[in-house]
Amino acid sequence: MRRLLLLLLALVAAAPGGYAQNTATDATAAIEQVMRQQEQAWNKGDLEGFMQGYWKSPDLTFFSGAQALHGWQETLDRYRKRYQSEGREMGRLEFSELQIEPLGDRAFVRGSWKLTMRDGKAPHGLFTLIFRKFPEGWRIVHDHTSAE
Amino acid sequence: MRRLLLLLLALVAAAPGGYAQNTATDATAAIEQVMRQQEQAWNKGDLEGFMQGYWKSPDLTFFSGAQALHGWQETLDRYRKRYQSEGREMGRLEFSELQIEPLGDRAFVRGSWKLTMRDGKAPHGLFTLIFRKFPEGWRIVHDHTSAE
Repeated sequence: MRRLLLLLLALVAAAPGGYAQNTATDATAAIEQVMRQQEQAWNKGDLEGFMQGYWKSPDLTFFSGAQALHGWQETLDRYRKRYQSEGREMGRLEFSELQIEPLGDRAFVRGSWKLTMRDGKAPHGLFTLIFRKFPEGWRIVHDHTSAE
Repeated sequence: MRRLLLLLLALVAAAPGGYAQNTATDATAAIEQVMRQQEQAWNKGDLEGFMQGYWKSPDLTFFSGAQALHGWQETLDRYRKRYQSEGREMGRLEFSELQIEPLGDRAFVRGSWKLTMRDGKAPHGLFTLIFRKFPEGWRIVHDHTSAE
């Protein structure tokens, strides 16, 4: 009986740590998957698919340079203007050096982006993202992106 | 007896929410104070004082443009080169539009920065910060800064 009690106590003591660790591993994998899906969508020229990684809300924020955009639609409009308007191309997108740190139902993500254009030019830079877990999955609620 | 039990239950039910809320308010105030101290130090020309808001670790990260710096010392060196070397001036720093979101022992902070120079020029931009709570207080563990 005493052994059983000790075993139960040990299980209870171990559980939260193990659970938290699994949750963090799951979150990291889920977030990386959202980002890989963004790359794939971008590289098919599917900007709306790319935008599925973002929180579809007026409260999404997108920082670049000294410009703060508010909302999913404004963010999509910026991408359209920059990469799909006359004479522009989307290029081939690659995310690298991802560092994903889950913090409960949020996560803090750092990484690098690179675009490879038809003429061989390769604009690149860094991003800091805040993800939040929604019933439909992890979505970017804030994006701070900078370029060379 | 039954009333007492109900009262106790109500207290227990209410406590965690109230506690979490107080903790978040405290965190927000503490983080804002760190940032106000940074402004004050900067505006006295005290770069080391300004740097006290940052985690004194080789794991601090500072993103700007396409450049990722690693560590407190590298970050200080960048500020020195940019604002204290021959012919440079620090200007008057002002943080505004702070949005502070505590997430347990981390916090996610968005805001604007502006420098006012002697010649009237006013470089400005945005930042995304991740703070972490250490025994000595809240410190920036990641800074993503961009300018016009």
